[in-house]
Amino acid sequence: MRVTIAVDAMGGDHGPSVTVIASLKFLEETPDAAVILVGREDEVRKTLVARRSTASDRISVQPASEVVDMNEAPANALRGKKDSSMRVAVNLVKDGTAQACVSAGNTGALMAISRFVLKTLPGFDRPAIASQLPTRTGVTTALDLGANVNCTSEQLVQFAVMGSALVAAVDGIERPTVGLLNIGEEDIKGNDVVKETAELLKASDLNFYGNVEGDDIYKGTVDVVVCDGFVGNVALKTSEGLALMLADFLREEFTRNPWRKALALFALPVLNAFKRRVDPRRYNGATLIGLKGVVVKSHGSADVLAFRYALKKACAEAAHGVLERIAQRLADVPALTPKASVAAGSSDA
Amino acid sequence: MRVTIAVDAMGGDHGPSVTVIASLKFLEETPDAAVILVGREDEVRKTLVARRSTASDRISVQPASEVVDMNEAPANALRGKKDSSMRVAVNLVKDGTAQACVSAGNTGALMAISRFVLKTLPGFDRPAIASQLPTRTGVTTALDLGANVNCTSEQLVQFAVMGSALVAAVDGIERPTVGLLNIGEEDIKGNDVVKETAELLKASDLNFYGNVEGDDIYKGTVDVVVCDGFVGNVALKTSEGLALMLADFLREEFTRNPWRKALALFALPVLNAFKRRVDPRRYNGATLIGLKGVVVKSHGSADVLAFRYALKKACAEAAHGVLERIAQRLADVPALTPKASVAAGSSDA
Repeated sequence: MRVTIAVDAMGGDHGPSVTVIASLKFLEETPDAAVILVGREDEVRKTLVARRSTASDRISVQPASEVVDMNEAPANALRGKKDSSMRVAVNLVKDGTAQACVSAGNTGALMAISRFVLKTLPGFDRPAIASQLPTRTGVTTALDLGANVNCTSEQLVQFAVMGSALVAAVDGIERPTVGLLNIGEEDIKGNDVVKETAELLKASDLNFYGNVEGDDIYKGTVDVVVCDGFVGNVALKTSEGLALMLADFLREEFTRNPWRKALALFALPVLNAFKRRVDPRRYNGATLIGLKGVVVKSHGSADVLAFRYALKKACAEAAHGVLERIAQRLADVPALTPKASVAAGSSDA
Repeated sequence: MRVTIAVDAMGGDHGPSVTVIASLKFLEETPDAAVILVGREDEVRKTLVARRSTASDRISVQPASEVVDMNEAPANALRGKKDSSMRVAVNLVKDGTAQACVSAGNTGALMAISRFVLKTLPGFDRPAIASQLPTRTGVTTALDLGANVNCTSEQLVQFAVMGSALVAAVDGIERPTVGLLNIGEEDIKGNDVVKETAELLKASDLNFYGNVEGDDIYKGTVDVVVCDGFVGNVALKTSEGLALMLADFLREEFTRNPWRKALALFALPVLNAFKRRVDPRRYNGATLIGLKGVVVKSHGSADVLAFRYALKKACAEAAHGVLERIAQRLADVPALTPKASVAAGSSDA
């Protein structure tokens, strides 16, 4: 089956210079895919014609006159810009022209527009943001990474269902292990919502591993790590900050004097191999999961390589029928009843 | 003023072989300090006499017949082991014999015993766990790192007060900047408790910087990062996991073949300089803050170097009068009224 991806060509810090080139490169390596570039036609075509490609026949342009600002209020973007490249790209998924949408634009706006246009799958209150992180043994899928700041135990179970379905579909792990992110001090075994979630997950048909701690993410203890969006976002951003600091320190140490600089030249292949293993660009592309459609959010600062990875991710999700998998799995979780959320906090609006 | 530190000599994974040797080394470099080693007298003395030291006259042994298990329930340790090395060490602070206590034992038990024996300072519901983390520009003090999983906005403000006092006293920064850990997605500006905390901090006399994100911890954006214990613990453990994974990857790349191993020999001084900058042992020692006494928790797996850093930290806090500072600061924060916590969640018991 050919997968057509609607690309918000104007989104992100670099716009068409990244999105268009990345789309061409992605198509050149993916023969059974097509891309619809959505945005200001002249700007998009200018970049498109400047580069010869064997994939030109699988790429088209869908005009959209407006662009959502990176710092614009989501409500503004949703109500005030009905012809934005982001909105038109999501519309293409809604009407079935495309099987997935990728944007590097404003996360809040993409979330608001996707919810409004595509709606959530039956049984899901709100979509979550899921992403893969590198581990010692491979990858872990973590969710939610920032969409839901106050979660009920019912929602956390929904995240577990969605994450399991995503990993089963895309990575081919039939019964992925699910860990509930918790804290490890002996005195305390998490807050009430987390404790209740553990009970619900134990009662479900999911392959529940149990509680995991922050360091288990990178140990690769489980296939899916479930947490609320506040905790997940802090863990993700903290990781980004630490990785950048360590990279800076390593660079500083290798450039401290001429001898060390010379040494760095010899060590370059080693250092590059190290860098490649943890290159965040290879993990670019967060899935807005729980929607009636595949929507992938690229990092705003993504370069061509990073954006290509987001396109690959969207393509894989559409090709492997992630949405159908989620619907199937939901039926397997009898614990998802309204009663389950009695003791939990209120959902974020 | 001479600072006397009560050391739980039996605590941690290694017991006296680490705690006794570290205490001697610490005293050798700190002429105005003394140590009371608390634990099973024969075991402690055996290690003590095996090593000649110029500091022997400033070290003494206080017998305690029991040892708190690393995995023991805190309530058990508190009620069932009244002659544990941990309990006796904390008692020495309570009766004024020592000005600080250091333990590498069971965190939950240390928290329970410290609260019971020393009590919290007036105006504080529960102690928090505070620790320094390395940043690009120096260090940041973060709290709470795991003692309080459900916090009210009032408690978070208390953490800000305690953290500011700690940094002012120990690091000599008179008005340390305080950041409130939050998430950065445009759609969402944190949960209700965090939003309310921000309002309270704005109204306080503290040097409130505003919201910070996870990556700001390692950027060194602020002197003090405030968060609830669940989020803080996840951020800390996630950081530990990532750092260990990256160190492993770097080692693997430098040992992949004989040529690379040879290269690693030349690069060793550089790699060691890098390692030293982020060596977690140098940041060992978390402060249980909010108690009527200085209590520092060392990592359970601490080696001699790491335990020495925990001793240094305890000594500095006692010498700089952290407790008096906190009491002063509390008076400066009129916002700390019961009214402030109306919309917040319930406190963890």
